[in-house]
Formats: sequence, C-alpha cells, structure tokens
Amino acid sequence: MDITTKIAHFTSPLYLESGRILEPFDIAYETYGKLNEKKDNVILICHALSGSHHAAGLYAGDRKPGWWDGLIGDGKAIDTTKYFVICSNTIGSCFGSTGPMSEQYPSSEPYRLNFPVVTIKDMVKAQMQLLSSLGIHSVRAIIGGSMGGMQGLQFAVDYPNFAKDIIVLASTYATQPWAIAFNKVAIEAIRRDPRFNNGNYAKDEFKEQGCDGLAIGRIAGHISYLSPDSMNEKFGRAYVSNDGLFELFGRYEVERYMEYNTSNFSKIFDPLSYLYIVKAINTFNLSRGYESLHDAVSRIKAKVHLISFSGDMLFLPREMEHLAKMLKRNGQKYSYNEIESNYGHDAFLVELEKFDYIIKDVLELADS
Amino acid sequence: MDITTKIAHFTSPLYLESGRILEPFDIAYETYGKLNEKKDNVILICHALSGSHHAAGLYAGDRKPGWWDGLIGDGKAIDTTKYFVICSNTIGSCFGSTGPMSEQYPSSEPYRLNFPVVTIKDMVKAQMQLLSSLGIHSVRAIIGGSMGGMQGLQFAVDYPNFAKDIIVLASTYATQPWAIAFNKVAIEAIRRDPRFNNGNYAKDEFKEQGCDGLAIGRIAGHISYLSPDSMNEKFGRAYVSNDGLFELFGRYEVERYMEYNTSNFSKIFDPLSYLYIVKAINTFNLSRGYESLHDAVSRIKAKVHLISFSGDMLFLPREMEHLAKMLKRNGQKYSYNEIESNYGHDAFLVELEKFDYIIKDVLELADS
Repeated sequence: MDITTKIAHFTSPLYLESGRILEPFDIAYETYGKLNEKKDNVILICHALSGSHHAAGLYAGDRKPGWWDGLIGDGKAIDTTKYFVICSNTIGSCFGSTGPMSEQYPSSEPYRLNFPVVTIKDMVKAQMQLLSSLGIHSVRAIIGGSMGGMQGLQFAVDYPNFAKDIIVLASTYATQPWAIAFNKVAIEAIRRDPRFNNGNYAKDEFKEQGCDGLAIGRIAGHISYLSPDSMNEKFGRAYVSNDGLFELFGRYEVERYMEYNTSNFSKIFDPLSYLYIVKAINTFNLSRGYESLHDAVSRIKAKVHLISFSGDMLFLPREMEHLAKMLKRNGQKYSYNEIESNYGHDAFLVELEKFDYIIKDVLELADS
Repeated sequence: MDITTKIAHFTSPLYLESGRILEPFDIAYETYGKLNEKKDNVILICHALSGSHHAAGLYAGDRKPGWWDGLIGDGKAIDTTKYFVICSNTIGSCFGSTGPMSEQYPSSEPYRLNFPVVTIKDMVKAQMQLLSSLGIHSVRAIIGGSMGGMQGLQFAVDYPNFAKDIIVLASTYATQPWAIAFNKVAIEAIRRDPRFNNGNYAKDEFKEQGCDGLAIGRIAGHISYLSPDSMNEKFGRAYVSNDGLFELFGRYEVERYMEYNTSNFSKIFDPLSYLYIVKAINTFNLSRGYESLHDAVSRIKAKVHLISFSGDMLFLPREMEHLAKMLKRNGQKYSYNEIESNYGHDAFLVELEKFDYIIKDVLELADS
C-alpha cells in the first residue's frame, strides 16, 4: 500500500458556523489505494481529537504506523486494493491543516487566540471543499470514531446525498456534560499553565519540556478513554518497583502509564489546537441549525451504521442507541451494534478484531 | 444539639506504618450529644478526603452546617439525644490536626515535604489514641463514607473488639487503579503548579487567588463524584447565557459548576494536605500487613454494614459486593445494601434519605 501525503491550499473562503471566515486555509491529507476512473471507490476516514491524517501505513524510518493501520490496507477491512481511502487533518488541528498556530494572512504571525472557533460542521465543510477540489462529489462511505464519528453524522445530515454508508463508532449525537466535564480539566490546565501565556508561547516552547497543562488535561482524557476494567487488567494495584511505597511521590503502575502517555503527547500536540478541538467537540450537537434532533436526523439518506462499545465511559452506548432508535422509528436505513468490550472508549482504536468484520460487511454489501 | 470543638495534644509518639514517627501531634475533633456514665454510647464518624471534624451542627454566624448534618442531630438517624458522636480531623489534613503545614517540632518551620506519608491505618491509630485519651475503650459504631469507610474497615480489621457495628458507605477494600488515576490528575496538577513551588509556598499563598493545581485536580475529582446521569439532570447541555457559543472560552453550565466548586476549595484546602491524603487513599489496601484480604477480613468481629450506590463511578458497587461476599462466605456478621441512585459517588453526602433508615435500624438494633 502506498501513502501519498499532501497539503491542499484553498484561497476561497471557508464560511464558518460562527459567522467568521477562514481564508486562506490549508488541509493536510493522505490517500491510500487508487482512485478509479469513475471516482466511485472513495472512502473518507475522519479522525478523533488527537488524531491526524496519518491513518494508515508506515512512513520510511518510522516505527509506528497510522492510527487505524489495522483496518486500512491491502486486503484489510478497508481494502486499499479496492478503495481509494482519504483521511484529512481537521481544520484547527496541528498536523498541517490550518489551525491557531498557522499564519494569519496577510501577516506572518500566528492566529493564536484570534483563530476563529471551528465546529464539527466546519470541519465537515472544509473536507467537502477538499474532496470537491479532487473532483470527488460523492463517496462510498465515511468512517470515523469518537470525534470522527461526529463528523460522519454531520456529513450525513448536512450533505444527505454525499455518502452511501456512514459508519460511526464510539460517538454521540450531541456531546453530553459528562464528556464536557472531562474536557474542562484540559481547558483549565492549559489556560492556567503560565508557560501557555495566554496563547503567546514561542513556536518551539514545548518541544523539549512539553506543556504541563496539556499533559495534565491529557491524564483526565486517558481516564475517560479507558475503564475500571481495562485499568484493573492492565495495572491492578501494581507499584513501580523502584518507588518506595511510603514515598509521597512513589507511583502505582497506572500513574506511570499516565505520565508516560501524556508527557510525550504534550511535546507533540499544540495546546492551542487542543483547546480549539475540544471546543469543537463540546459544541457538537447534530440538531444545531435544525428544528430538532429529529428534524436533523430525518434529512439523512445514507445508511447509518452505529457501533458502540459496552465499556465506553466517555460516550455511553445509550447515546448511540438513542440515535439508533430514532432512525428505526423514522424507518431510515441503519444498523446498530453494541460491541461487548470492557476496554473503554479507546476500544475503537484498539480492539479492531471486534468490529472490523462489520465494516468489511458494510463495504462488501455496498459493492454488491 | 451543642457542638464542642477541641484540639487534643499528644506528646507520645505515633508510630506510623512507614516506620517513621509523628511526635508530637494534634487532633482536632468535635463532639455532639453527651457521653453517658458507662461511656457506652459513643459513635465515631470518619470523614472523607476533603472533609473535616465538623460533621454536624452550625457554627455561630455560619450558613453551612457540618457535612453530615442531615444524619447527625437530635432525633436524626444518628440521634444525639442518645449518642455521644465524635468526629476528628484525620492526621495529614489541614483543619487543625497535624499535617504537612504544621510545625515540625522542635523547629517552628512547617514539615512541608518532610511530613511523613500517613496511611489509613495511621489515621485509625491516631483516632484510637484520641479516644483512649477520652477514656473511651470501645464504641457502639463507626460510620464513614468513601475514605471514611476505609477507616471504618481498617478499624474493624486492626481493632476487632473496638466497635459493635461498622457502617461503610461508597467505599472499597483496596483502592483500584481507576480511582488512583483520578487522583493522579490532582497530584500532577499540584506538583506542576509553579506557585506550589515544591511545597515551599507561603502560608497564605493561596488565600486570595487559590491554588490552580488544586483547583484543576479537584475538577477531575468532581467528575468522579458525580455521574453521567446526575450531570444530565443538573446541567444537560445548558450554556452559560452570557457566554457566546462561538467564544473559545465560552462555557457550558457544567463547566461553570466545576469552576465554582473548585476555585473556592482551592483557597481553603491546603495543597500539601491534599497530596498526603490522596496518597493515603491510593495506598489503602485492607490486606496490607496481613497474609491476604481473606486473612484481614477474617479478623473482623464487628457486624459490617456495607452500603454502595448503583451510580458510584469512583468506588464501584462491585467492590463493596466483593467484600460482602467474602464476609458471607466466612460466616461473619454483615449486611449489604446497594442503593439505587444515579447521583454518583457523592450520593453518600447528598441522598441521605435513601439510606438514613439503614443507619437508624442498625443503631436501634444495637440498642436492643
């Protein structure tokens, strides 16, 4: 499978939900597989909060493949011998698409806190422009988990004729206060980090030492991505062997895991981008701009495949179920699967073997 | 009901589980009701992480009564016309008992990070010395929720003949990694707060502005004290009306609640104490010092009344159930009630009417 990584430049304005305009803007994206002549073999992948356009494949010299490499590739559930797979970095993120640390044209200074708030609707709109620029006016399927699933649903509502199938994992129809509260830890931790300096940090400020506020917020995030069960299985009450039990800062293994997984992240991910993307997640509400959730959902023409995970502590299965029931009541095309898993929210990134066959079936059925 | 607030000074050493010694030490405590001549009407109340010895009654000029005022008082479930109720501030805390900001005798400087790690076992031992100094050598019942419940269980194991009944709410037999992970947010947020300054802050450093690290950690705490259901009921997706939806730092009501509830707390509670008490919670393991949990539990002679809450997201009902099953298998005296509640962990502080009758029954039965 070959990877093509590109940045698309747009000089046309992106009219945002807030009324503000993003102009010009870039979208970083990757493609896997080949676009056929009819341009009807496209699958769009949408990433989650901390993800990027690098969904699959291994860069030369890299050890870690893209975040859904287990699903996307030659012969895999999302088969790149058949499909042309596209994944783009959302606007507001920090992996090549325009975000708060991008230059605010015509100045060469970054937007920082002048960057406009972007929403899931805006992320979707920007992706529509990207696809349009590639001459793609409809896709086979849109697939995403968590914030990626929100994008999938928003695509389905805002552009009803665009995709045949929408596959949504571990997501919701509107972010609930429980998830907003977890995000609040990150917001406050970043804002109150003196080195964040109200967004006026140097571009390489966090490269060496990381951003403490982001690392702290990310610990709360990781709690919500796991579950009591997965933590029991992974760590139990094991103590870091070198740490004395009666040392104040001696650590349990679960604490070491949290440190390890957040300190590196806080060197790589831009804290302003984190704030903006978290804002997009918090404001996600499929019904906004429509009369009601029912009104929004009724617009959907695609078949919507909802996959929840029983142990998801962030977006509870009942949220997906609520949507499934509404689709059912409306007589719309849908499927709903609650996957038995005690891993937690991150099951959509980790326990691929538990649901990859569903994706495969959906795509094969769409082919037939 | 009259409140007596006192500080007891101990010049005898407290030998800690770590091998270190606390000497001298103070314990702040309150009593409600009257000790009878036989001294056999004593009920000991143990407080949770952020609690204090002020469990009941209203101080002159105060608007907020003690934290379990709904349970403790004349004619209430814990009836102060019958019982002599004692609640003491745990060692390590910051409401009058010896903690990290107390003077390290013989110097007049605070211990700060030189304060020894204290454990639930140590807190219990210190309370034994307090009761002993009051001429009380056995109690009717020990009652506590969360960390207070840990103390109740530790009393039951370490001093099997001391209490007739132990009532434990919303607690566990050993802190699980899920709870340790929530505490990790606070530990890292406090440690990395520059104003915390490795524990070398001025005594009144946080009085005006609060301690950011503690406030951030406390947000994570409040998430674990509530539940998705209680947040939906309390806040839903309501937005603070003055905040613009498309302002980056515009807030949902749940965010305002988190700010409100943590900013004041971070002015009052000492961040070093928070670190030490969180450490005591993390290291809580009823089996430590015994061959196994079974070995520890088998020592208990009191009747143990376990009360869990179905929506508790911090100490899951199954943890209490595990203990109940063990007591049952051993043929020990116990009762177990899982209270139907979607409030979350804090139900033990809030939904008193759901379990006060259990406490009343236990105490009345003990009288008969």
